[in-house]
Amino acid sequence: MRVAVLGAGTVGREVVRALVERAPELTAADGAPLELVGIAVRDVARARAAGLPSALLTDAPAHLVASDDTDIIVELIGGDEPAHTLIVAALGAGKSVVTANKHVIAHHGPALEAAARRTGAALRFEASVGGGIPVLGPLATDLAANHILAVRGIVNGTTNYILSAMADEGRDYGDVLAAAQAAGYAEADPRGDVEGLDAVNKLVILARLAFGVWLDPSKVATIAMDGPGNGRPGITGIGSADVAAATAAGRVIKLIAEARRGPDGTLSASVLPTAVPADAALGRTSGVTNRIEIDAEPVGTVAFSGPGAGGPATSSAVLGDLIAISRELGSTWAGLPPAVAS
Amino acid sequence: MRVAVLGAGTVGREVVRALVERAPELTAADGAPLELVGIAVRDVARARAAGLPSALLTDAPAHLVASDDTDIIVELIGGDEPAHTLIVAALGAGKSVVTANKHVIAHHGPALEAAARRTGAALRFEASVGGGIPVLGPLATDLAANHILAVRGIVNGTTNYILSAMADEGRDYGDVLAAAQAAGYAEADPRGDVEGLDAVNKLVILARLAFGVWLDPSKVATIAMDGPGNGRPGITGIGSADVAAATAAGRVIKLIAEARRGPDGTLSASVLPTAVPADAALGRTSGVTNRIEIDAEPVGTVAFSGPGAGGPATSSAVLGDLIAISRELGSTWAGLPPAVAS
Repeated sequence: MRVAVLGAGTVGREVVRALVERAPELTAADGAPLELVGIAVRDVARARAAGLPSALLTDAPAHLVASDDTDIIVELIGGDEPAHTLIVAALGAGKSVVTANKHVIAHHGPALEAAARRTGAALRFEASVGGGIPVLGPLATDLAANHILAVRGIVNGTTNYILSAMADEGRDYGDVLAAAQAAGYAEADPRGDVEGLDAVNKLVILARLAFGVWLDPSKVATIAMDGPGNGRPGITGIGSADVAAATAAGRVIKLIAEARRGPDGTLSASVLPTAVPADAALGRTSGVTNRIEIDAEPVGTVAFSGPGAGGPATSSAVLGDLIAISRELGSTWAGLPPAVAS
Repeated sequence: MRVAVLGAGTVGREVVRALVERAPELTAADGAPLELVGIAVRDVARARAAGLPSALLTDAPAHLVASDDTDIIVELIGGDEPAHTLIVAALGAGKSVVTANKHVIAHHGPALEAAARRTGAALRFEASVGGGIPVLGPLATDLAANHILAVRGIVNGTTNYILSAMADEGRDYGDVLAAAQAAGYAEADPRGDVEGLDAVNKLVILARLAFGVWLDPSKVATIAMDGPGNGRPGITGIGSADVAAATAAGRVIKLIAEARRGPDGTLSASVLPTAVPADAALGRTSGVTNRIEIDAEPVGTVAFSGPGAGGPATSSAVLGDLIAISRELGSTWAGLPPAVAS
């Protein structure tokens, strides 16, 4: 299986390094060998200077997607375009795709699933939720016999870091955000994280595996009708008074993503700042750790936790998906019925 | 796929019920339908009175294994014999096997793996560790790109219940054990649990997936050289003084199963009562909840928690394995290299 990696950022560099240094090990006993044949980067000279293998570098990702010499495309550019078009082109050409791109999967899920089913290409995206934590695979495979009742968790490290710092150090939202930006924990434009949109994307992807439905990300509630948040999206309205009130009640404010199927079969989904008991497992989930809990019948409640971000952790999920494709395990949703749009 | 269930105890009854009531749902999109064709029980009259489907009942499990009308054998009898011989016979006949039997898998692993590889039959045993918690599947598949450094956890609910009650209520080991037996949380002969042998079996199975080695269960340490336990196996030597000393140090005694690969490549494995920080995740794991933590590169540390026992929870893992076999996903270790014996 000839692999092209598009994007050599934090995650891409780790994936490339593993494919270069550990390719024989990454071949499953019942899988086809993986061979890195191309790396698309924005700036070839810079990538070469950073030590990426010269002979494999190109600044033309579409050429790698269209080439007769590639079988699997690993999309690690992120964001909407050109990632979306490149993934569509690969699936359309019958090439399997591994991606960590939660935005593209959440916003174009129905069309991408249709494209993959049409051509028989596999689309895998374990890295799009929870970084290196296995959660989509277990939902689709190990827990396949269950009726899923609810999926909830802390799936965004930036907001969790900010909320933890506000609670632990008694600082204002604006102060902590500025410090997080300075330290590289929050982006210059932090809206995707702090307004809850990143968590919404991850919840939409979890719900696809849990409930067989592609939710419309724009319909997921991010503004609480009551509770902390002062009517503003995500954590942007959380003030010191909210934090103090939660602390006084033995609680801590976390940005909780939750999708739930009601007794009448309807799905509800939200990403809201929520005061949870400080000594509950979600309340104790701090920093960049993610935790995802699944309520299901017959299993009860199972939980998955670990590093929700970072190049090395996320590369574990990308490489696991590559191995799965080389074993012909199909798409992340393989085994489950085709999804319906909500 | 015609399925025979051997054993209709706590887990077997749940598996039968699901296969009777939910067979169409349990068919994966890319899998063959599952059909329940036989149930072996010790006492047919009693099973009939308990509402199990009359036409499927037999007291001759070996006949179901040998029959031309069965494709998959679900072994839920437990213990060594006759379960071991029935599993060997099924694999020898090329029939796939799903089992929750940690004793047989841990004690006969190398021979069973060889038999399954020889005939091409699948052997799956997710339910043998952690009840309904997905952990063997994620180790073998989602985390397949990692070097596993260590696996540790709380994998025995009976001892965890006893230790929790001793710590929370200040009661003696003997008192709590007797009460647990009266309440059905501990068996009449509790040695398998309290001496650590059940946890040893689960650790041996985890180590097969994590390290590619079948450890000899008799070589796993269950008596601490120092620390709590007074030189007796498992939790049998834990006294009130041990508990009080741990509490005074902000710790709590848990029976921790751990396998670890050292820097020189050697594996160590133990199941020992261990004073862990009371506010760490393992310290806060109480009652029948199990928690398994995996340290690996590149992912870091990921953890899996949930109900480690009980009929409904464990049936989730058995049914998930049945679905996996109907999807031709192979054995629990599929994708990994053949194991070596330690």
